[in-house]
Amino acid sequence: MTTPWADPACPRDARVEALLAEMTLEEKLAQLGSAWPGVEHVSGNVAPMQDVFSRHIDFADAGKNGLGHLTRPFGTKPVEPAEGARRLAATQRELMDTTRLGIPAIAHEECLTGFTTHHATVFPTALAWAAAFDPALVERMARAIGTSMRRVGVHQGLSPVLDVVRDYRWGRVEETLGEDPYLVATTGTAYVRGLESAGIIATLKHFAGYSASKGARNHAPVSMGPREFADVILPPFETALREGGARSVMNSYADVDGVPAGADAALLTGLLREEWGFEGTVVSDYWSVAFLRTMHRIAATDGEAGARALAAGIDVELPDTLCYGEPLAELVRSGAVPEELVDRAVRRVLRQKADLGLLDAGYAPEADVDERIDLDPPAHRALARELAEHSVVLLDNQGGLLPLAAEVASIALVGPCANDPNAFFGCYSFPNHVLPHHPGYGNGVEALPLLDALALELPAARIAYEQGCPVKEADRSGIEAAVAEAARADVCVAVVGDLAGLFGRGTSGEGCDVEDLALPGVQDELVEALLATGTPLVLVVVSGRPYALGAYAGRAAAIVQAFFPGEEGGPALAGVLSGRVTPSGKLPVQVPRSPGGHPSTYLHAPLGGNSQGVSNLDPTPAYPFGHGLSYTEFAYSALALSAETIPTDGEVEIGCLVRNTGARHAAEVVQLYTADPVARLPRPVVQLTGFARVELAPGQERRVTFRLHTDRLAYTGLDLRRVVEPGEITVLVGASSADIRLTGTLHLTGPEREAGHDRVLGTPVVLG
Amino acid sequence: MTTPWADPACPRDARVEALLAEMTLEEKLAQLGSAWPGVEHVSGNVAPMQDVFSRHIDFADAGKNGLGHLTRPFGTKPVEPAEGARRLAATQRELMDTTRLGIPAIAHEECLTGFTTHHATVFPTALAWAAAFDPALVERMARAIGTSMRRVGVHQGLSPVLDVVRDYRWGRVEETLGEDPYLVATTGTAYVRGLESAGIIATLKHFAGYSASKGARNHAPVSMGPREFADVILPPFETALREGGARSVMNSYADVDGVPAGADAALLTGLLREEWGFEGTVVSDYWSVAFLRTMHRIAATDGEAGARALAAGIDVELPDTLCYGEPLAELVRSGAVPEELVDRAVRRVLRQKADLGLLDAGYAPEADVDERIDLDPPAHRALARELAEHSVVLLDNQGGLLPLAAEVASIALVGPCANDPNAFFGCYSFPNHVLPHHPGYGNGVEALPLLDALALELPAARIAYEQGCPVKEADRSGIEAAVAEAARADVCVAVVGDLAGLFGRGTSGEGCDVEDLALPGVQDELVEALLATGTPLVLVVVSGRPYALGAYAGRAAAIVQAFFPGEEGGPALAGVLSGRVTPSGKLPVQVPRSPGGHPSTYLHAPLGGNSQGVSNLDPTPAYPFGHGLSYTEFAYSALALSAETIPTDGEVEIGCLVRNTGARHAAEVVQLYTADPVARLPRPVVQLTGFARVELAPGQERRVTFRLHTDRLAYTGLDLRRVVEPGEITVLVGASSADIRLTGTLHLTGPEREAGHDRVLGTPVVLG
Repeated sequence: MTTPWADPACPRDARVEALLAEMTLEEKLAQLGSAWPGVEHVSGNVAPMQDVFSRHIDFADAGKNGLGHLTRPFGTKPVEPAEGARRLAATQRELMDTTRLGIPAIAHEECLTGFTTHHATVFPTALAWAAAFDPALVERMARAIGTSMRRVGVHQGLSPVLDVVRDYRWGRVEETLGEDPYLVATTGTAYVRGLESAGIIATLKHFAGYSASKGARNHAPVSMGPREFADVILPPFETALREGGARSVMNSYADVDGVPAGADAALLTGLLREEWGFEGTVVSDYWSVAFLRTMHRIAATDGEAGARALAAGIDVELPDTLCYGEPLAELVRSGAVPEELVDRAVRRVLRQKADLGLLDAGYAPEADVDERIDLDPPAHRALARELAEHSVVLLDNQGGLLPLAAEVASIALVGPCANDPNAFFGCYSFPNHVLPHHPGYGNGVEALPLLDALALELPAARIAYEQGCPVKEADRSGIEAAVAEAARADVCVAVVGDLAGLFGRGTSGEGCDVEDLALPGVQDELVEALLATGTPLVLVVVSGRPYALGAYAGRAAAIVQAFFPGEEGGPALAGVLSGRVTPSGKLPVQVPRSPGGHPSTYLHAPLGGNSQGVSNLDPTPAYPFGHGLSYTEFAYSALALSAETIPTDGEVEIGCLVRNTGARHAAEVVQLYTADPVARLPRPVVQLTGFARVELAPGQERRVTFRLHTDRLAYTGLDLRRVVEPGEITVLVGASSADIRLTGTLHLTGPEREAGHDRVLGTPVVLG
Repeated sequence: MTTPWADPACPRDARVEALLAEMTLEEKLAQLGSAWPGVEHVSGNVAPMQDVFSRHIDFADAGKNGLGHLTRPFGTKPVEPAEGARRLAATQRELMDTTRLGIPAIAHEECLTGFTTHHATVFPTALAWAAAFDPALVERMARAIGTSMRRVGVHQGLSPVLDVVRDYRWGRVEETLGEDPYLVATTGTAYVRGLESAGIIATLKHFAGYSASKGARNHAPVSMGPREFADVILPPFETALREGGARSVMNSYADVDGVPAGADAALLTGLLREEWGFEGTVVSDYWSVAFLRTMHRIAATDGEAGARALAAGIDVELPDTLCYGEPLAELVRSGAVPEELVDRAVRRVLRQKADLGLLDAGYAPEADVDERIDLDPPAHRALARELAEHSVVLLDNQGGLLPLAAEVASIALVGPCANDPNAFFGCYSFPNHVLPHHPGYGNGVEALPLLDALALELPAARIAYEQGCPVKEADRSGIEAAVAEAARADVCVAVVGDLAGLFGRGTSGEGCDVEDLALPGVQDELVEALLATGTPLVLVVVSGRPYALGAYAGRAAAIVQAFFPGEEGGPALAGVLSGRVTPSGKLPVQVPRSPGGHPSTYLHAPLGGNSQGVSNLDPTPAYPFGHGLSYTEFAYSALALSAETIPTDGEVEIGCLVRNTGARHAAEVVQLYTADPVARLPRPVVQLTGFARVELAPGQERRVTFRLHTDRLAYTGLDLRRVVEPGEITVLVGASSADIRLTGTLHLTGPEREAGHDRVLGTPVVLG
C-alpha cells in the first residue's frame, strides 16, 4: 500500500504534512540542501570562491539523509546529452535507493544563454534579448530552452537575471536585460513564461539590489535608499512573479544599505511572502549562506549563518550544504533555532517536489532519459538566429556605408572578435561558464565566425583578415599588419569587444568588472590606427557591456553594436553588414561618451543629466537608451489619446501611426515614454512606459495602441507608499529616449491614490 | 521711549514677539530673504546658475521692507578692508534709515580658507586642516578668521563644510575634511568653536548627503539609504551642533533617495529641530529654493517652491529673495500657506538678530568700522604657516632622498604648480572664488611660490625652473625643456596638481568635477618623461583632491602630498623638502592606485575592500587613509585598556606608549581604530575612533590615552535605531589605517542598548 504522501490522489498539502511528520530533523535539513557532484575536478572558479568551499564535499555523504537539490549535473564538464541524462537518472536512482524515504532531488542547472551544457544551443546573451525589444520571441526561446532541460531530467533553471543595470562597469551587465525596469520586467517575464511553460521552475535573480555595487565591483556593498529600491530594483521581480508565475527566487549577494539580502527577513519574508504572496522557494545564490560568516561577518559560525539565512527566508542552501547541515542541526537540537523555521522551508521544498511528481510512488527517473535527444535542433538554431538578428543595433551610419554594396571589391576584416568561434558566446554559455578559454575548445555546437559568415554573404568581395590585437592583452604587435590591410582595402570592418569569462578570466562576465569603459586591452589604439588610414571604417562592437564610443561618433563611417549574439551571431551580423537583414535592435543601455565618470544611466531625475550650470561634467551618452537605426525610415503621426483627462485610477489608450517610408521591409520598435513635469518628488526626465516591435513592409502604415493604466505612473512617495498623483503627465512617443516624434499631455484628476499591484506590467499593445 | 523690542533689558523672546506683532506680512518675509549688492557686475558664476538668477535683482527694491541677510558684502570685488567695512556700514545705515522698522541685516560671508576677501589671510584649504589631524590649531585659525570678519561688520560665515567625502572625483573634495566621519566631526567642531568664539555665526553645510552624488557630478542625485546616512553623513553635523554650538545650518542641493534636502521636513525639522533640538537658523544654499522649481521640478511656481522650502524648515532664502518675496506672500494672503510657518522662521531670524545686538536701540553699524584693520596680520600668517606645515603629507620616501641634503648642487624644479603664486590657494579663497584666473592677479597678500621659497631654504643649490606643462590644457610643448633640465640636475622636484576654480574654470573646486583621477591635463605624461631621465624624482602633488599615484609608487624617489596649503604653502613645502620641517601630516583621504574604478573610500564593510575571490578589481589604495611618513621613526608599545570588559553603556581608557626613536624633533598622529569582528549587520573593517597629535623630542616617550565611551561604537541597526551591541570589539592603535602597531580586545556585556546623544564626539585624549 502506498503511504499517503506518495499518493498523487491525495491533496498536495496533506501529502506534504504527512511526509514532514515522518521526517527526522536530519532528513528535513537534507531537503534544504544540495550537492554538486563532480565540481571538485573543475579547475578555476565556476562560482565565487568555489575553490575555497568545494573541496571537502563528499557526494555520497552529502546525500545520506536525502537531498533537496542536485547542483548542475550537466554543467561542469563536457558530457554528451544522453549520457548526461543517464548519469542524472542514475544519481536520482541512487538517492532513492540509498535513503530511508527515497525522495529524489530537484535537479537545477544554469540556462541564461541556453541550457548551459555541451552541445546545447547557445542563444544570444540576455542583454541582446533586451536589445531586440521582443518579449514574444524571448518567450519562445525560453520555452525551447526549458524543453531541452526537461527532456534530460532537469527541473529548475537559474534564470532569468532581473537586476536593473546601474553601472556599466559591472561584469554581469551582459546577463541583465538592461537599465530600464519596464524593459527588464517585460522581457524577463516573457522568459519566465517560456521556461515555466516547459515545466521548468524559473529562478528570479538576484533578489535584490546586486547591480548597484560600489564602483561596480562584484559583491561590493550597495548604497541605495528604499525609494530607488522600490521604483527601480523591485518592479521586474514583482512583475515576473505576478504575471510570469516564477516559482523560485534567488537572493542577491550584496548588502543594500548595510543589510545582506541573504539575512534580510523584511525582504525575503516581509515583502516577498507576506506582501507579494509568493509561495515558491527561495534558493541561496551559491555559497551566499556561508558568506554571511566569511564575507559579511554577521555570523560567528556556519550554524549561525544558517540560522540567520533560514530565519530571513532562504529555504534551500546552494550549491552544497555547508551551513544547513550539521551546523544548523546542532542549533535546532539545542533549541537556539525553532524547528518551525526548518519546517516552513521544508514544506515549500516538498510542495514543489509534489508538483513535479517527485513524491509519487513509482516515480522512475530513468523514464526521463531520451537517448536521441538533440540539444541544438534546427528549430532552436532558427530561434537563436532570429533573436540574434533582431538584437543587432545599428548605432551610426553617417557615412551611409551600410549595408555594404554587393560590389564592394575588398574588405579588410580586422579585430580580435572577427575570427574567433567563441567570441560571440556570453559568459554563461558552455564552456565559458565552466572552463578557462581554450583556443579551439568550443561548446560542441557549430558557430560561424564573422569572417566565414561574411564571406558567405559577400562572395564577390576579397576579404583579408588580420587580428590586429587580442581582446585583453596589451599586445600591439599585430596592429601594423592590420593597418596595412586596412589601407589597401575599400572598406575596413573592425570587430572589437569582449572576451566572456568568469572571475577575471575574461573582460566581461561574472567577476570581470572594469575600472572604466575604454575598450579592453589596446583595442582603442587599434581603432584609432585604422581610422588614421582614411579607409572608411565600419566599427562592429561585440561585447557584454556598452563601451565608450564617443571618440568614434562621426569618424567611423558606421558603428554596429551587438551584445554576445550566440551561435548564430556570425551570420546575423554578416547579414546586417550585407543588408540581407535590416537592423532593428535598440539600445537597452546607453552607449557612453567617455570611459570615466560613471555610473550614469538614462533613468534619472533632471539633476542626474546634463547640468552644465552646476557641474562641468556632462553625462549625456554618445548613443541614447532606445536608440537604433534602420536601413529604412519611419514616419510617426497622429498621436491620439482615448481621453485627455482620466482619474488617478483610470486607464488610457495612447495610439499613433507609424509608416515605413523607405524601400525595405523592416521592423521599428515604437517607444512610449512618460514624464511628470511637476511632482511632489523629483521624477525621471523620461521613463519607458511601453514599446511595440512593428513589422512594416515598404510604404506600409500601422496603428500602434498602448493601453496604460495609471498604476504604471505610480512612484514611491515620501511615506514610502507607491502613489499615483493627480496632475499633468507628458506622453512621448518616439524612436528612442532622445528621438521623440510625438508629444501629448494627459491629465490625472481626483485624489492621490495608492497604486495597486494588479497592473504591475499591464500594457497590452494593440497593433492595427 | 524705546519700544520693548529694541530694549536690551527685555527678555529676548519677549522682544521677538513684540517685534513680530508689529510686522506686516511683507516685513516678515523680508526678514527671511537676502540681497547681494554688486553681484550683477561679476563676470562668470560665483554660485551655481548665478548668471541665470542674479541679473534682475535691484538692491534698493529688495530692501524696501527690510532684509534678513546681506549677501557677501566683501566677496565679489576687490575692496580695501576699511573701505569694505565703511561700505557695509553705509548699507546697513541705509537699510535702517529707509525701512519702517529700521532693522539691520545679518551680513554673511564665505570664510572657508579664511575670510574670502581681498587682502585677507589665505589659510590652507579644509582638506589640509584634516591632513594636519590638529583640531586645536584649526580652532585657533577659525578664531582668527572670525575676529577679522567681526571687525569689519560681518556676522555670519558660511563654513564649515561637514560633508564626508564619498567620491574623490567631486570638485568640492578640497572643501571637506576628508572621508572619515570622526575626523570631519572633530576638526569641523573645532572650526565651529573657533569661529563662534569670535562672535561669528558658523554655518554647517551642506545638510545633508551632498558629497555622494552620482558619478561625483555636482548636484547629481544621491543614492543612499537611511543607515549609511545616519552612520556616515550625519555624525559631523550632530557633533558640531551639540559640541560646537553652531548657530546656523545650510541645506544641501542634492536629492537623497529622491528627496531634495531643501524640501525635506523630516530632515530639516524632524531630525534637526525636534530630535536634535537645534534653535538657530536654517539658511538655503544659494538659489536652492528656486532650484526646487527649476532643477528638482517639484514646484510649479516660485511661490510653491518657497512654500515647500518654508514648510520643510528653510528659514532664510539666500543669496537673493526670489521665492520668499512676493511669490510666497501671495500664497500666504490666499491662505494656501499658513502665516504661522512664516512666523516660525521669522522668530528664528529675529532671535539671532537680538543676540547680535541688531535690534538694540541706538545700534550703530558705523561703530564696527576699524580704519586700521589688517586682515593678514603676522599672527594670522603664523597660524597659516603652522597649519600648512602640519598638513604636508610625506607619502613615500623609498629612495631616502628627503630631506634634500643641504649640499645638493643642482635641482630641476619642474611643473605647473612650482612657480605660480596662486597655485596654493583653494577654490574658496579670494580671488579664486570670485574671478576667473588672471595671470598675476593675486588676492592682495604675499604668497611665495615654491621656486622662491626653495631658493631661500637651499641657498647653495642651483635651481633651474621649467613649467613643463600647464595644469589643465593638453599643451606638451614645454615637456622637452623640462626633461632636459631634469636630465642635467642631481635631483628633479616635480610640482604637479590642481588649479582651483569655480564651475569648470579650474580643475578642482565647486563645479570642477572629474571623470577619473588621472592628474589633470598632460601632467602624468610630464611625470613619466621626468622619471625616464633616471634623475631621482621628488614628486610633489599640490591639489584639492587625491589623484591616482599608483603608477609612481616605488618609482619616484619620494612623493609629497599637499592639499592647497594657502599663502604660506610655499615656505611650508620648501621647509619639508629641506628638512627644516619634519613632516607630520596624515592622509584624510586615500590616495588611489588607479584613475578609474571609483568611488571607494577606506570606510567600508569587508566586501567593499579587496575581494579578489569575487571581483577582479582591487580598490586597495596606493596610500591608505591615515598614512603619512616622518623623517624619524616612532615605536608603539604597552597597549593598555582600563578594563577588558565593560557594559554596553560603559567607558574605557585605551592607552599606549609612543617613542620617537629617531634623531629629530617630530610629531606623530597616533590613531585609534576599532572593528567589530562579528555583528548583527556588516561593519567597517576598521573605523577611526580617536587620534592624538603628539610632539616628541628625539628619544622622548609619551603615554597617549583615549577615553572611549561605548556610544562611539554604536551603529544604525535593522530597525534604524542607533544601538550598542554586546560582544567583542577589536581595538587597534597605529600610524595609519593600514599600519596597525598594537591590537587588543574589548568585551561589551549586557543588553543591546540604544546609543545616547550626549557623547557624539566625547573622546578626550590625555597625553602623558
